[in-house]
Amino acid sequence: MGRTEIYREFGINLDLALEAHEAIRGQRGGEIPGVKLQEETFDTAQVKTVTVLDQRGASIIGKPPGKYITLESNVLRINNKAYHKQLSETLAQKLKEILPFHSENNSVLIVGLGNWNATPDALGPKVVEKTMATRHLYGKVPEELTNGLRPVSTIAPGVLGITGIETAEIIRGIVEKTNPNLIIAIDALAAGDVSRIGATIQLANTGINPGSGVGNKRSGINQETMGIPVIAIGVPTVVHASIIAHDIIESFVEQMKARPPLTELTKELHPPMLKMIIDQVLQPYSNSLMVTPKEVDDLIENTSKVIAMALAEALHPAMPEEVANYLH
Amino acid sequence: MGRTEIYREFGINLDLALEAHEAIRGQRGGEIPGVKLQEETFDTAQVKTVTVLDQRGASIIGKPPGKYITLESNVLRINNKAYHKQLSETLAQKLKEILPFHSENNSVLIVGLGNWNATPDALGPKVVEKTMATRHLYGKVPEELTNGLRPVSTIAPGVLGITGIETAEIIRGIVEKTNPNLIIAIDALAAGDVSRIGATIQLANTGINPGSGVGNKRSGINQETMGIPVIAIGVPTVVHASIIAHDIIESFVEQMKARPPLTELTKELHPPMLKMIIDQVLQPYSNSLMVTPKEVDDLIENTSKVIAMALAEALHPAMPEEVANYLH
Amino acid sequence: MGRTEIYREFGINLDLALEAHEAIRGQRGGEIPGVKLQEETFDTAQVKTVTVLDQRGASIIGKPPGKYITLESNVLRINNKAYHKQLSETLAQKLKEILPFHSENNSVLIVGLGNWNATPDALGPKVVEKTMATRHLYGKVPEELTNGLRPVSTIAPGVLGITGIETAEIIRGIVEKTNPNLIIAIDALAAGDVSRIGATIQLANTGINPGSGVGNKRSGINQETMGIPVIAIGVPTVVHASIIAHDIIESFVEQMKARPPLTELTKELHPPMLKMIIDQVLQPYSNSLMVTPKEVDDLIENTSKVIAMALAEALHPAMPEEVANYLH
Amino acid sequence: MGRTEIYREFGINLDLALEAHEAIRGQRGGEIPGVKLQEETFDTAQVKTVTVLDQRGASIIGKPPGKYITLESNVLRINNKAYHKQLSETLAQKLKEILPFHSENNSVLIVGLGNWNATPDALGPKVVEKTMATRHLYGKVPEELTNGLRPVSTIAPGVLGITGIETAEIIRGIVEKTNPNLIIAIDALAAGDVSRIGATIQLANTGINPGSGVGNKRSGINQETMGIPVIAIGVPTVVHASIIAHDIIESFVEQMKARPPLTELTKELHPPMLKMIIDQVLQPYSNSLMVTPKEVDDLIENTSKVIAMALAEALHPAMPEEVANYLH
Repeated sequence: MGRTEIYREFGINLDLALEAHEAIRGQRGGEIPGVKLQEETFDTAQVKTVTVLDQRGASIIGKPPGKYITLESNVLRINNKAYHKQLSETLAQKLKEILPFHSENNSVLIVGLGNWNATPDALGPKVVEKTMATRHLYGKVPEELTNGLRPVSTIAPGVLGITGIETAEIIRGIVEKTNPNLIIAIDALAAGDVSRIGATIQLANTGINPGSGVGNKRSGINQETMGIPVIAIGVPTVVHASIIAHDIIESFVEQMKARPPLTELTKELHPPMLKMIIDQVLQPYSNSLMVTPKEVDDLIENTSKVIAMALAEALHPAMPEEVANYLH
Repeated sequence: MGRTEIYREFGINLDLALEAHEAIRGQRGGEIPGVKLQEETFDTAQVKTVTVLDQRGASIIGKPPGKYITLESNVLRINNKAYHKQLSETLAQKLKEILPFHSENNSVLIVGLGNWNATPDALGPKVVEKTMATRHLYGKVPEELTNGLRPVSTIAPGVLGITGIETAEIIRGIVEKTNPNLIIAIDALAAGDVSRIGATIQLANTGINPGSGVGNKRSGINQETMGIPVIAIGVPTVVHASIIAHDIIESFVEQMKARPPLTELTKELHPPMLKMIIDQVLQPYSNSLMVTPKEVDDLIENTSKVIAMALAEALHPAMPEEVANYLH
Repeated sequence: MGRTEIYREFGINLDLALEAHEAIRGQRGGEIPGVKLQEETFDTAQVKTVTVLDQRGASIIGKPPGKYITLESNVLRINNKAYHKQLSETLAQKLKEILPFHSENNSVLIVGLGNWNATPDALGPKVVEKTMATRHLYGKVPEELTNGLRPVSTIAPGVLGITGIETAEIIRGIVEKTNPNLIIAIDALAAGDVSRIGATIQLANTGINPGSGVGNKRSGINQETMGIPVIAIGVPTVVHASIIAHDIIESFVEQMKARPPLTELTKELHPPMLKMIIDQVLQPYSNSLMVTPKEVDDLIENTSKVIAMALAEALHPAMPEEVANYLH
Repeated sequence: MGRTEIYREFGINLDLALEAHEAIRGQRGGEIPGVKLQEETFDTAQVKTVTVLDQRGASIIGKPPGKYITLESNVLRINNKAYHKQLSETLAQKLKEILPFHSENNSVLIVGLGNWNATPDALGPKVVEKTMATRHLYGKVPEELTNGLRPVSTIAPGVLGITGIETAEIIRGIVEKTNPNLIIAIDALAAGDVSRIGATIQLANTGINPGSGVGNKRSGINQETMGIPVIAIGVPTVVHASIIAHDIIESFVEQMKARPPLTELTKELHPPMLKMIIDQVLQPYSNSLMVTPKEVDDLIENTSKVIAMALAEALHPAMPEEVANYLH
């Protein structure tokens, strides 16, 4: 009745590398070869970096080689601007560490993934709404205004169900026409635990890879498909109801584990049996049911502000104060 | 481990009278005194009317005496305009049956409860957005345009967390200033079963009463507090995660019930123990966690159209064709 | 061909007292009895206060006795957060000067007038969206969180064409139920000159009075109708096309005034003739045509931020830092 | 003081070919070589087709060779669904006449141009919001559901000021990735006369060409730049304030024309002098000032519905009834 098995049974991939790491380490009971974990403490965040070093690590953890930096913080759930600013500075610092820039003129396309019309999925479009594009200003405004600014363009392309087009196709088309040096894609994620919602931001220098959480089998947005580096900023806003269902049974059995007869019984609790039990409760929706806190609109608002501030801070290398004011 | 006990443990009230009826009847194993259930079949809906006849019935079922008409239909989940029109006509017919009008000039205030910014809670405001107010036209447009129209006003007052004011206070203030003869309040509800989501519309001539599902302890919007009749139109769009958690355990035990040792164990599964098991999984959110299908934005869009069409049809007694076109 | 006459001919009232003052002083060629004008200079604003001292002044200037404080600033047209903060501080200071509070517990209802769906009219609702309600927190959160906070409630009631109810009726109903000590009403105004758009904020301690600019003959929102003081914050976002049309002809004649024959002709340019000339161009819309800059969405966004910041600063008398962060 | 000269002076291009045709014919006093005008009468619309036959016509009228079909109708200003349906059927019929399809499988990309956040410019995005994408359904839903449907994809790419990318670049990128057979681009236009607002829909088989009305010097979206045919659907929602200003002076002079001295004076009214007079009134905004009726939000809502209905009707060649219901 391990977590990784139940995820497989339900066709769910853990979006957060840190969760995948924890699940697998729990199962193996020790270090994972080819994977490294580092921790740092900041004022308003605990930062845990999972580095997938090689293909061996990648095949165990189910994520391509690269850095997955997770900020854990409890300030997104409260409306405190000073704390949000601190968190955005930590995010900016970690973002800078993985920026692959070679020059101050390197340009960035910021992509807000997700659906405007569904609150928990609107994070990406909301970050884009709060981000100032600068790419079109070059040559049109006095040079001292763009001096110290990096060319930034933004797009919130919508989702497949609305456009009829794979999001990756839209992005690839825009990349080929505008030749940015980097994509930063912002997306709402599905977590494996409700305590992650409104408490976690993941930065990854590997882009967005197929098989991600909410079940949209969109093709990847990554170096391989785009031809340029892709940094993904992901924030868990929902948990699959089927994961919660599984955890409830596990919690129940844990509670009862002192009783020998139950221990006996749970041997029969193999994944297909579990799936049958859970599907009975979740039908007719099953895999499309999502769990989210009622306050998700506030969480999305706060988180999109923190990310937009961090992007402005990290991307523009030498902002004159006047421009900084313009941006914030 | 009965449902009604677990609801009590979690402080959850079943918004749908039909669900309360089913839960209690299941528990009692027979008819409920003071409560009557009737069923009718329509093209796109099964209509079940729970009539709470007296105080005895009210105290058992936890709903004030009155009519609770539930339309069960599976057409809200699909984008078929012809089916939606059929369903809106059934809804209009049942609405007309409980309209307390004594004259063609009786006026109506339509209240869209809920929060614009949270998709599953936006049903009420979306119905208001699709409803034409006519109250202000009297005396301002040619009489043949308002002839056959009932005076209708609309308000989407927002929620306590945004306004700082109990919604009932806002409505009561407007009622006293504008003297409508009837309030129709539209609200998103919490159901006890995911299969109810996007499949159920409840009409009640008892208004909205405290202790309703999602946990906002707002005071009632009903004849007693408003001084005029209140019809409530409610649509389940979410289920409490704690209800799902409970049902999972019940489904698990059901599956195992042939095994005597488990039967023994489940005797200990009293509500406080269950709550502890469930809280362990749902913390730190617990009661505020909601389960909703990913497609909830489409469900809300379809349902708000059906309700707005039914309101236009039911409220305007003798619409000239020209006006009908204006309204639809 | 004086401005005041043409406004009368078109049924237009100047929303800005400062404009009415200028128009009348221009016409009379000197001081206006019963009306006082003071000027102050701030970092990012020129502040001009028109005080209508008595009924004589009121009947000349067409505004009830009271203070009309106009901030003229050119920083709303640019995206510079530092300048916006300075302007919001000046606005907060002038707002504090006219707050009629007698106690730290005095409560405020903030009313966002106007129509969400029409960009230039959405200023009021946008300020409300950015303002935190605190009234419902008393007794529900730890006292140290509300300590130093004033009870604030907010409402964006919509417009007559959407609700079917006079906005003043809605507000009066809410006031009677919730008993605030003060209303602050935010509204988009019509100006008499395009250079006022995105450059002016008017504060008035006389509320909102009938006959206002855009032609909605809504009844007043003022001490007389509400029973409590009403402060109005108004920002010009449009100019009537008919005013522009008039000014064009005046500009034309001014240009030609050295020519005696034209001077002769313009004697015939009495208001009805002017109205006929102008209506020919503006039909079929005439009075409902509004002139607004294409960038009006940015102006509304910037201005609503400045006002929301000033409200938070001015209303909460002794905010602990933690709460200040919560608010900003 | 001809219209075409004043447009040139202000750098304004007439978006509507019919207006350009009228302006030039007025100036020349007769037929325009290389340009043909046809008229038809429908129930709720007068349809006028300007065909630019050759380069000679194109250079006179300032529009590339092709068909410009203008529907004039007064039903968009009223909320009458039956009339809107009639108008949408006429629009669908004229659209079908210029569709360049060679096969039932030819696919269409519908592009909603313009800015969501500015009401008069939101027409394109609103049509997209009301249009169902079908392209992604092929191979994923039962064939009888897509049978008779044409593959349709949609995009509302935003505007240069928000994305930092020329809209034409975004579209071209998407076209190259998804290979549609046709683009239909919907856009809000600037008219030369306020009576056109809410009364006109223009269909053109020449796409969108640089130098269009509102002043965004975006590069063209047409066969030349996209490599596939482009049909443009344009609806005037604003008029430049400078055009209104010019017309006011013309109306004034017309009124006075019996007076010889004025006739003398107006000889001096050459375009630069006019521009100076007008700029004096319109500063500091000048060319960015737009005139629009207060009810523009209702006009946009009605018009976007009519266009979305016409697109569904015209594009899907043999819709089974079930699918038709799905679409409408």
